[in-house]
Parts: sequence; C-alpha cells; structure tokens
Amino acid sequence: MTIRVQGHELGLDQRLCLIAGPCVVESHSATLAIAEQLTEMTTQRGIPFVFKASYDKANRSSASSYRGPGQAKGLETLAAVRERFDIPVLTDVHEYTPLDEVADVVDWLQTPAFLCRQTDFIQAVAACNRPVNIKKGQFLAPWDMSHVVDKAKATGNTRITVCERGVSFGYNNLVADMRSLAAMRATGAPVIFDATHSVQLPGGQGSASGGQREHVPVLARAAVAAGVSGLFMETHPDPANALSDGPNSWPLDRLPALLDALLALDSVVKQHGFAENEH
Amino acid sequence: MTIRVQGHELGLDQRLCLIAGPCVVESHSATLAIAEQLTEMTTQRGIPFVFKASYDKANRSSASSYRGPGQAKGLETLAAVRERFDIPVLTDVHEYTPLDEVADVVDWLQTPAFLCRQTDFIQAVAACNRPVNIKKGQFLAPWDMSHVVDKAKATGNTRITVCERGVSFGYNNLVADMRSLAAMRATGAPVIFDATHSVQLPGGQGSASGGQREHVPVLARAAVAAGVSGLFMETHPDPANALSDGPNSWPLDRLPALLDALLALDSVVKQHGFAENEH
Amino acid sequence: MTIRVQGHELGLDQRLCLIAGPCVVESHSATLAIAEQLTEMTTQRGIPFVFKASYDKANRSSASSYRGPGQAKGLETLAAVRERFDIPVLTDVHEYTPLDEVADVVDWLQTPAFLCRQTDFIQAVAACNRPVNIKKGQFLAPWDMSHVVDKAKATGNTRITVCERGVSFGYNNLVADMRSLAAMRATGAPVIFDATHSVQLPGGQGSASGGQREHVPVLARAAVAAGVSGLFMETHPDPANALSDGPNSWPLDRLPALLDALLALDSVVKQHGFAENEH
Amino acid sequence: MTIRVQGHELGLDQRLCLIAGPCVVESHSATLAIAEQLTEMTTQRGIPFVFKASYDKANRSSASSYRGPGQAKGLETLAAVRERFDIPVLTDVHEYTPLDEVADVVDWLQTPAFLCRQTDFIQAVAACNRPVNIKKGQFLAPWDMSHVVDKAKATGNTRITVCERGVSFGYNNLVADMRSLAAMRATGAPVIFDATHSVQLPGGQGSASGGQREHVPVLARAAVAAGVSGLFMETHPDPANALSDGPNSWPLDRLPALLDALLALDSVVKQHGFAENEH
Repeated sequence: MTIRVQGHELGLDQRLCLIAGPCVVESHSATLAIAEQLTEMTTQRGIPFVFKASYDKANRSSASSYRGPGQAKGLETLAAVRERFDIPVLTDVHEYTPLDEVADVVDWLQTPAFLCRQTDFIQAVAACNRPVNIKKGQFLAPWDMSHVVDKAKATGNTRITVCERGVSFGYNNLVADMRSLAAMRATGAPVIFDATHSVQLPGGQGSASGGQREHVPVLARAAVAAGVSGLFMETHPDPANALSDGPNSWPLDRLPALLDALLALDSVVKQHGFAENEH
Repeated sequence: MTIRVQGHELGLDQRLCLIAGPCVVESHSATLAIAEQLTEMTTQRGIPFVFKASYDKANRSSASSYRGPGQAKGLETLAAVRERFDIPVLTDVHEYTPLDEVADVVDWLQTPAFLCRQTDFIQAVAACNRPVNIKKGQFLAPWDMSHVVDKAKATGNTRITVCERGVSFGYNNLVADMRSLAAMRATGAPVIFDATHSVQLPGGQGSASGGQREHVPVLARAAVAAGVSGLFMETHPDPANALSDGPNSWPLDRLPALLDALLALDSVVKQHGFAENEH
Repeated sequence: MTIRVQGHELGLDQRLCLIAGPCVVESHSATLAIAEQLTEMTTQRGIPFVFKASYDKANRSSASSYRGPGQAKGLETLAAVRERFDIPVLTDVHEYTPLDEVADVVDWLQTPAFLCRQTDFIQAVAACNRPVNIKKGQFLAPWDMSHVVDKAKATGNTRITVCERGVSFGYNNLVADMRSLAAMRATGAPVIFDATHSVQLPGGQGSASGGQREHVPVLARAAVAAGVSGLFMETHPDPANALSDGPNSWPLDRLPALLDALLALDSVVKQHGFAENEH
Repeated sequence: MTIRVQGHELGLDQRLCLIAGPCVVESHSATLAIAEQLTEMTTQRGIPFVFKASYDKANRSSASSYRGPGQAKGLETLAAVRERFDIPVLTDVHEYTPLDEVADVVDWLQTPAFLCRQTDFIQAVAACNRPVNIKKGQFLAPWDMSHVVDKAKATGNTRITVCERGVSFGYNNLVADMRSLAAMRATGAPVIFDATHSVQLPGGQGSASGGQREHVPVLARAAVAAGVSGLFMETHPDPANALSDGPNSWPLDRLPALLDALLALDSVVKQHGFAENEH
C-alpha cells in the first residue's frame, strides 16, 4: 500500500507527505508567494510536498460566496507553481469539471467528500489516469470506503488515496474519528488526514461554514500519531482576510513550528510500528 | 408556501400529497402494474398522487449492484405511466443526467441528498423549469436548507420543495429528526418527508445499504402528525425480491391500511393547526 | 403490557395518559393552582392524569441554580395536590433520596436518565413497590432498555414504564428518535414520551441547559402518532420566569389547544392499529 | 494546572502518568501479579504509575454479569498492592459506596461518567479530600465539564482531574473527540485520556458492552500526541478470559512495546509545545 505521486512515495513506511496551500487561488502572485514559502519549508525538512489550491469552490454554502478565479486562470496559476518550483500540484474537481483539461495540468486529482458516492463521477475522475485523493463523505463509515476505492480501481487506476475530513456529529459540527485512519488502511489505499476541514463547523456562520483553527494542531498531531501517509492542510498568510475557509486555515508563519512537531511525531510513530496492525 | 405540481396543490393547508412507487424501474409491465394499483388506491381516497421511480441508481454502495434499465427505457416507462393513468411522475437526476431529456418527460425532478450542496448541479436542475424536490443531505442541518433553496430560486424557478430523509447518526445509521420538518418551513418551500430512506441503514449490509421496513409506518405517522405537505414512500409488491432498497420498501398490499391511518392523522393535524407556528 | 397506576390503566390499547406539571415546586400555592387547572383540563377531556413536580433538582448544570424547596416542603405540597384533587402524583428520585419517605407520599416514582444504568439505584427504587417510570439515558440505545427493565423487574415489581427523552446528537443537542418509541415496546413496559426534555439543549446556555419550546408541539404530535401509552410534559403559567427548565416548558394557557390536537391524534392512531407490530 | 497525587506530579509540563490495571479485581493473587508487572514496567521507564482496579462494577449492562469481589475483599487487595509495591492506587466509587471507607485505603478516587452530573455525589466524593478523577459523561460537551469541576472544587478540594472516555456517537458506539482533550484544559484540571472505555461499544454484545481492543493503540497514540497529563488503560494477562471489559483490555504482555511508543510521543509533543494554547 505505497503509491507514487510524481516522484514522491506515499505509505506508512514513508515519511509524511504534506499537501498544503491556500483554500482557493486568490491571485496569481499571492499563490506563487505561498508556494515558494511552502517549497522552502518542506525542502529544508526533506519531506515530500504537494501544493494544493482550488480554483472553483463548487459547493459553498451560499451562492454569493467567492468561488475562485475560474478554470482558465486557475489552471494557469497551478501550472506556474508546478513549473517554477518543480513540485506536484493537487486540485479538486467537481461534477461539471472538464476533467481532461484539469488532468493535463495537475498531478493529483481530488474528489470532494459530498461526491464520494457518485459512481460515475468517481470513475470518470479515476479514468483520467492521475493519482486520485478521494475524500470520505461526512456521512460515510470508514469501512464503507472500500467500495468507493474498488469502484475507482475498477477503471484500472491503482493510484488511489483516501482522506478523512471529519464525520457528521450532530448539526453544524464534525468529529475526526482517529479510528477511521486505521480502519481505512483496509481499503489498500494510503490514508491522508485533512486537518483543515476536520475543524470546520459546517454552516456554522449562517451563510458560510465556520471553523476552529485552534483545533488544527491538536487534530494534526493526533492524526500523525495515529499514523497516516499524508497530511492535508490549508494555510494562508492572513487567515482573517482569506476569501474562503479562513476560520480553519493555519497561519503560514506559524506552519514551520507546527511542522517540526508533526514530523518529529511522524518519525517516532513510524519507528515504533503500529500495534493495531498485528491484531 | 403552496406550490402547484401538475394540477396538485402542495402545502400545509392542503391534503397530504403521496409520492410513491418502486425504488427503481424493474420491468415495463411490473412498473405499470404498480402505478395502476397506486392510482386506484389514491383516487379512491381523493388525494394527490405522484408516481415515483428511478431509472438509474447512480450512487449505489457497490458498483456491481443493479442500477436500472438505463435512460431510454426508463423514460419510456415513465412516459407510459404518465399517459396511461394521467398522473404526474417524479424521478431523480444526477451529476451526468441529460437534464433536458428527462425534463421533457417527467413532471417533477428530484435531486439526491448527497448532491444538495453542489451549486452548479442544483441550479442546472432548477433551470429546467420543472418543480424540483431537493432532498436534504444526511450531513446538513435543517436551517442550512435555506441557502440551498435560495440558490435554486435564484434561477427564477419558484416551484421548489424540500425533503427530509434522515440525518447521519453515528456510523451506518440515520435518524429522522421531526424538528427538521417544522424548521424547514422557514425555507418557504413545502416540506416532504421521505419515509423510506429515513429507515435506511447506510452501508449496513456490507456491499449494500440495509433498512428497517418495520419503522416505515412509525416514522410516516410521526412525520404526518408533525405536519408535512407530502409523503414520499417506496413500495414494492414483493420487497424481499426487489432489485434495490427492498429492505426499506413497504409492501404494496399493506399500503392501503397504512394510507388510511396516515390520511386520518393528516386530516386531524391540519384541522387543529400548528401551535409551533404561532411561536 | 398494560400496567395500573392508581386507578389509571396505561397501555397502547388505552387512551393517552398525561403526566404534567411544573418542572419544580416553586411555591405551595402556585403548585396547587397549576394542579387545579390541569385536573380540570383533563377531567373535561376524560383522560388519565398524573401530576408531576420535582422538589429537588439534583443534577443541574451549575451548583448555583435553584434546586427546589427541599424534601420536607416538597413532599408536603405533593401530598396536598394528591389529596385536594384526588389525583396520583409522580416525582423523581436521585442517588441520595430517602426512598421510603418519598414512596409514602407519591404514587409513581421516576428515575433520571443519567442514572438508568446504576443497577443498585434502579433496584432500590423498584423495591419500593410503587410504579416506576425509568427514563432512558441520553447515551443508551432503545433496545438496551430491556436490560434495565429486567433489572427492575428482578425485584418483583412489575409496574415499570420506560420513557424516551431524547438521545445525544453531537454536543449540546438531543434528537428524539421516533423509532425508539416502537423499539422499546419490546421491553414489555408501556412507553412514555417526554416532550419537554427532548427539546432540551443540554448545557446550551452556558451554566444552564437551554431548550426550544417551539418544538414541544411538533415532537409531542409526532410521538403520539408513533404510538405511546403516556405523554410527559412540563408546563408553567409563565415559562419565561420559571425557576427551572423555563425554555422548554409549554405555557399552561396554551395547553388545552395542544391537548385537543394530541388526543385526536391518539384516538386516530390507536383506532387504526400499529402496522409495525405485525411485522 | 499541575496537581499532586501521592508524590506524582500531573500536568502538561510533566511526563505522562500511567493509570493502569485490570478492569476488576478478579483474585487477590492475580491482581498482585498484574500490579507487580506494571510496577516493574513503569519503574524501568521512569514514569509515574497509579494502579487501577474496581472491586464492584455497579453499572453493568446486565444484572447477571460479574460485579467483583465486593468491598471488603476488594479494598483488602488494593491495600496490599499499595503496600507491597509502594504505589498509589485508584478505584471508582458509585452512588451507594461508603466513601470514607474507600478513601481510607485508596489514593485517588474516580467517579463514573454516567454520574458526572449528580451534584450531591460529585461533592460527596470531592469532600473526601483525596484527588478525584472525574470522567466526562458520554452525553456531555467538553466545555460543560467546567461546571462539574467548579462543583467539585466548591468543596475546597483542588486536586481534581478530568477524563475523556468517548462521547455518544449514534447507538452502541462512542467516538473519542481529540478536540475535547484540548478544550478541557479550560477547566483548570489536568486532562486524562481513558483509552479503554473510548473503544467500548456500549451494549454492543447484547447483554454486555463490546469493545474493539485493536483501536486502543490508535487512540492512545492520538491522545498522547494531542497532549494529556495522564493515560488510563485497562490491561489483562488474558483479555479473552477477563471477567469484565475483556474486549477492550490491552494484553499485558504487549503493553511494554505500546508504552515505549507512547512515551516517545509524549516526550516529543511536550518538547515542542502546544500551538493551540497560544491561540
């Protein structure tokens, strides 16, 4: 259960892969500046890094929220990040995304949690022959991800990862069940933890989803110690003024310190092994 | 907050509208036979009836489950039901459904719970200028349906209904929160209760979702007494051998007795009024 | 599964029994005035009525909240209600209640939801040889109430009822699962629905639990239509100034209209029978 | 927020304290044998250790399950453990426990999750002037533990710890919310994680609660990385034949390896600090 994404190996016997970036492409230059800092940060620490940004937020709570720069500009920016820093990029695709055009530019496709049960969509994305990160629906039990992975792999694509991003817990709240990170190993796909959306309070701000940024380090540390192949985290130089998901973005200038703690934990846990796997 | 669907009025000051039929079109003749019985049953009782059947189950747990006869045959059967019995028909559409072709044949479009947050999809369906029944996501709070309804109405379509079908309650279980039926009145859209999917045990049978048919009458009675404009219920002459959702389908031959109880409750509650609305 | 409480029969083949009163005894005269109105209201409608009031709230969120007049005064008031209006009274007992003294005065003992799993406590209460209404814990599945009832009956007391009052649903929220009302019939004990505490928002006001009174009629109607032997409801002439549980108390002057709707529903549903029981 | 338990300091700036032992005292000699192994294990690793065992399981699902050796024998065994190995012991007390007799023998009292809201009980236990470990109810939000701690401290006892053991998540399941471990720091009491009861499936075996031992290491690692003052864990030399809670006990012979991983994580996280606290 190790897969390869553009030269990076993902697996429980590999160092933690960081997937990070702003929630949405805000401007070309701002996006490149973030990518530069993240590249430097991860190069210094010698860990695999994949840049993440959305260009079209297709499922925001309210129709009047900022959705992004649109596809043409968005892909242009992602392509620039990719080339300038020589790093792989990931973006999310949706029900009406022209998949081929996106797959031409990005290295790793991501499917939204809400869409994890849409058979045709999942298979269409998997058929693009790019690695696919499938987010687990907020309504799905971890063991039910096996069927989702099987559907995706039925297209012949074996580079599938699964991602925990919290499960519905009453109204307007999610809980990140750490058991899920171990349970999803049974899918055969490397498991990634999304520390950003796990602290979302869906719909919690009326016309937008709220979030509790202060829980990002808590859940990220917990997940890394539970044992994951990758960590997904949104970051922003100025979260209070971010155009999307600001409440749960982690401040870019505080990321290095957090990263150091996480990598130390990752190293310890992968050294000691996973007692649950011998069960 | 009364809307018109093909000659039927839907609202809290109207008699309960029944939306019923098999989960999926199994064969042309079997589907027509069910429609005939339901037409007779509802005509005798003088209530609005809309026939429901899917022709393509796009989000089944496992890729190997029966999905239906496909679009051409499915629409043909729905058209036949519509013409032969002079009743409106409802079907559900998905991310890749050719919406125009479906809207040409059916009277009422329904969007799946998983897709309720996909802005483009909801607006594409609403733009078809047919009434749209929007199922509330298993991950959504009732008050958050206002944004969904607003998105749909932004297309100019005012004939929107909202539908409760249970909310995530731990893993592999749903709970039907009766407060939701009252809370969703604030959307301005008539509220429908789906008694079939509310008793689903998602993923509960391993590669398929289970269900607890015995709770259908309990939840249907409760919802009608809470006060709804319509009731959605899947029924089958032989649920044990149904090709989809059998475990939560109500046996067709036991529907008349259940319907009598429900209509009597509906009449009582609508006579006495809704104390919560004066609050 | 019919039991007798001071001349009243409780069961699914009997008219709905109303258990109502203020959350807590506030003053002797105010309590008697409420009891008088309730007695009149229920006599006119020919239904069994049991007066309910607590005299010591032993599990309030904060230690500084009003707990009641204490045992001596509280029992005196309950005894006065009992004698003056010739009606049975119910009160709740707690871990340190002198059970014999209470059982001397009240007709029906009630155990708190939080304590439903305390074997010694449940058996001590059951051993008082009074009917016991056991509230289901907010953390318990309906089917697990069978063990609780069995423990209580092991004392030789057969007059046990079980009561649904909502189940934990995320933080600071409860949901009333109507399936529970049918599922708990398997305990062999008549099932009662508590419409007041089911709308509680536990801890929702910081140092006290909040509540949403507007959902009381919705849930009460739903539960009666699901089919119950009794309905528990707290009422107050001036809920905004009630000393405990005001946010979820139903205004006394609006109770007659609500009661009329509920009794009409009760009559309809018990006439038509319970389709789920034939399953 | 550091407290002292018999010479051990508990706090986020101290090494992890281990509270471990069998669920229930099975026999005098078996209990001593377990205590000996645990003492050796923790002495070698230089960490604070508190021996834990119950002598009377007062809230088992079914009345016919093994409850323990009773108080006299139970306390005798605990006293023997205490003296022979010179270690502090912890046990849980219940609604009818003679608190003085227990407090004479044990160093640390623990209150059950179900009873966390019983004001009189919590205060009676706190009044014993021993450290008290208060388990958070399965029905309680983390921030609501502040009221519980305040009630306890109102007795003058400042040596209070709080303990997360999972929160209700649908029926017959719990989820361990790692955010709770950080949120409960606001109570001012050191936070302990109970890795054993967090993997319980309440009522999951019909007449007894089930459990998923394989999740113990996952949750324990996650909690330690989230940051806690202590870890509570039940262990047994032969879990399959344990008389109580066997399904969630961790095998004694596999504890050293698990402990090594946990202590390494604890050391890393306490070195790097808690980014969330600076928020």
